[in-house]
Amino acid sequence: MPDVELNFERSEYADRIARTRVAMDKAGYDLLFLADPSNMSWLTGYDGWSFYVHQGVLLAMDGDPVWWGRGMDANGALRTVFMDAADIIGYPDHYVQSTERHPMDHLCDVIKQRGWDKHTIAVEMDNYYFTAAAFASLQTNLPNATFKDAGGIVNWQRIVKSPQEIEYIRRAARIVEAMHAKVFERVEPGMKKNELVADILHTAAFGADGHGGDYCAFVPMLPSGVDATAPHLTWDERPFNNNEITFFELGGCHRRYHCPMSRTISLGTPKQTHLDAEKAMVESLNAGLEAANAGNTCHDVAVAFFDTLNSFGFEKDSRTGYSIGLSYPPDWGERTLSLRKGDMTVLEPGMCIHFIPSLWLDDAGLEISETILITDKGAEPFCNYPRKLLVKD
Amino acid sequence: MPDVELNFERSEYADRIARTRVAMDKAGYDLLFLADPSNMSWLTGYDGWSFYVHQGVLLAMDGDPVWWGRGMDANGALRTVFMDAADIIGYPDHYVQSTERHPMDHLCDVIKQRGWDKHTIAVEMDNYYFTAAAFASLQTNLPNATFKDAGGIVNWQRIVKSPQEIEYIRRAARIVEAMHAKVFERVEPGMKKNELVADILHTAAFGADGHGGDYCAFVPMLPSGVDATAPHLTWDERPFNNNEITFFELGGCHRRYHCPMSRTISLGTPKQTHLDAEKAMVESLNAGLEAANAGNTCHDVAVAFFDTLNSFGFEKDSRTGYSIGLSYPPDWGERTLSLRKGDMTVLEPGMCIHFIPSLWLDDAGLEISETILITDKGAEPFCNYPRKLLVKD
Repeated sequence: MPDVELNFERSEYADRIARTRVAMDKAGYDLLFLADPSNMSWLTGYDGWSFYVHQGVLLAMDGDPVWWGRGMDANGALRTVFMDAADIIGYPDHYVQSTERHPMDHLCDVIKQRGWDKHTIAVEMDNYYFTAAAFASLQTNLPNATFKDAGGIVNWQRIVKSPQEIEYIRRAARIVEAMHAKVFERVEPGMKKNELVADILHTAAFGADGHGGDYCAFVPMLPSGVDATAPHLTWDERPFNNNEITFFELGGCHRRYHCPMSRTISLGTPKQTHLDAEKAMVESLNAGLEAANAGNTCHDVAVAFFDTLNSFGFEKDSRTGYSIGLSYPPDWGERTLSLRKGDMTVLEPGMCIHFIPSLWLDDAGLEISETILITDKGAEPFCNYPRKLLVKD
Repeated sequence: MPDVELNFERSEYADRIARTRVAMDKAGYDLLFLADPSNMSWLTGYDGWSFYVHQGVLLAMDGDPVWWGRGMDANGALRTVFMDAADIIGYPDHYVQSTERHPMDHLCDVIKQRGWDKHTIAVEMDNYYFTAAAFASLQTNLPNATFKDAGGIVNWQRIVKSPQEIEYIRRAARIVEAMHAKVFERVEPGMKKNELVADILHTAAFGADGHGGDYCAFVPMLPSGVDATAPHLTWDERPFNNNEITFFELGGCHRRYHCPMSRTISLGTPKQTHLDAEKAMVESLNAGLEAANAGNTCHDVAVAFFDTLNSFGFEKDSRTGYSIGLSYPPDWGERTLSLRKGDMTVLEPGMCIHFIPSLWLDDAGLEISETILITDKGAEPFCNYPRKLLVKD
């Protein structure tokens, strides 16, 4: 066995693979091709910023998974995955961004060599990193295969976290608390946004509580005032202003496990309308947390949250939470459950959810969020940080 | 016209659109759908970390481009693009990560409403963010359209940079110089990698020379020793060691424009084999730079580089450079020209290339790179930083 320092016991990878195969069997798949870097990492340990070229993991119903990617990244696989070298396959560099040949043509040869080309092959049809051209190559080169949409079959296996995964998220929670503490300490009128981001990113990587930070699957978002009506603006070089509110959507990350947390800061005395929004948001969040018990559904949590929000006269037309854990850019969400009406996923102990109420007003946006662990005693927030509109005068 | 602070004059966007339409006409396309966030931004100004949901820009042969994306991100579009609100279209949140409906179904309705559903529609078949499922939705919902692979049609329009774009890359160059200077100042045996990354990211966002930093499309890569045989490992919490070399592949970013630069640092006296590799690399890079004249091809540069490298007894099986500029994660490359044999792209003044020699030895990896501007007087490096293996005792 290769001498690789893995983030989890080998038995945990074996368990993940076994559970995935049960789901494959139930769905009638013989072979999975996974291009989602989070799913690749979860099943094999692979870690590297190489998802800008075609790569993936093949999982058949027996044997170890097969890592496949660019030749130079096969070295990274050798240093991060649990499998032997025989199951790490690199393609030559002349496939990279070539107009003459597609890397997936090479993958098809691998599939043929392993005798899998008449299989029912499930692919992640709607994943970033599984392009329309990648699928076209499979269809052309494997005429005897049957293709199915794997959807989020592996993402759904990831939804209940193991104790070791929860430990990593706890470490990430310490990091995001430190990031918010740094923000509150440093932010002031006249400070340029990018200069505050410098402090945020420093804290994010430096880490907290003796544990280092990894790169987050999102960058910091910190829109102020009217800009905050647009939730996914990042930052610029403009200064913070007095009498303006800013939300900070930040995430701590440790060994690729995320703990997001959002808070909103008012520089100067907040307007009454912002205090009203704060009250509605916090009480709705609290109502949702009360309902986030194992056995209840996401729908139940959403009803508790949205009914409370509406009782304060506010409306919100977007979901208010999603599953989180292991991730790579561009999304820290797991793309499984959503906290919205109609999502009948039953909450189980070990699920980790970013519960993120946000309100976009005419002149501002507010976010106050918690990442929670579902336990058999209810929802447990990972962070311990004042759950309110923070005011700095 | 909306009151939006754009990064470029409106006339520059108009020129970009006009050039793209010439290429569309030549290729026989009536309509482009662009999911690449870099292409979206280059044509419209759009900027936001929203590419983790389906979104895109439609460009027909007349009228303004149409921004299409998630409802909440339409607010971000209103604040970053040059078009009027009538050409900014958001889809409802129940399309987001739903198993019942696909956001592209909504786009198809937009295409029908505009009377474009019998058009020859070109899509970026091999782009991240254009998934196999996205294409399937188009094919199903627009049975009267003809689909073509747009390839890198817009990327190729981006390849010669305007004076304003070059100015932004120059600012990014000052930032990446400051990042490397910080690394050399701080790195020492025993320092944890993530703690050095904290300093790197701080400098990256703080900026230099009075200009702030934006997030880079790559995260810092800084593998040491044997780990550096794997080029895309990022960082961990292990310490730097004496008598070990580390390469630092870093990029400055300003208003989404990148200037990458790699350097290698030896802690303690370098081995002779590493000095030999350094000499081969720098001389090969210099030979390539000499050949990087307007009118020559990428192939010519590659021949000059690889022939020199081989004359020193070294082999490298991967390309040694690519076009850079505006970008979003996961890749700072523009995905057009590559510095490799057989790439017959003719160099023109205004092209910007990350010329990145790298050597993976048995016990280490080295990178010493330059981002260059092609001028009518030859290749001009954006950075002014010692082009050698840096030694810190």
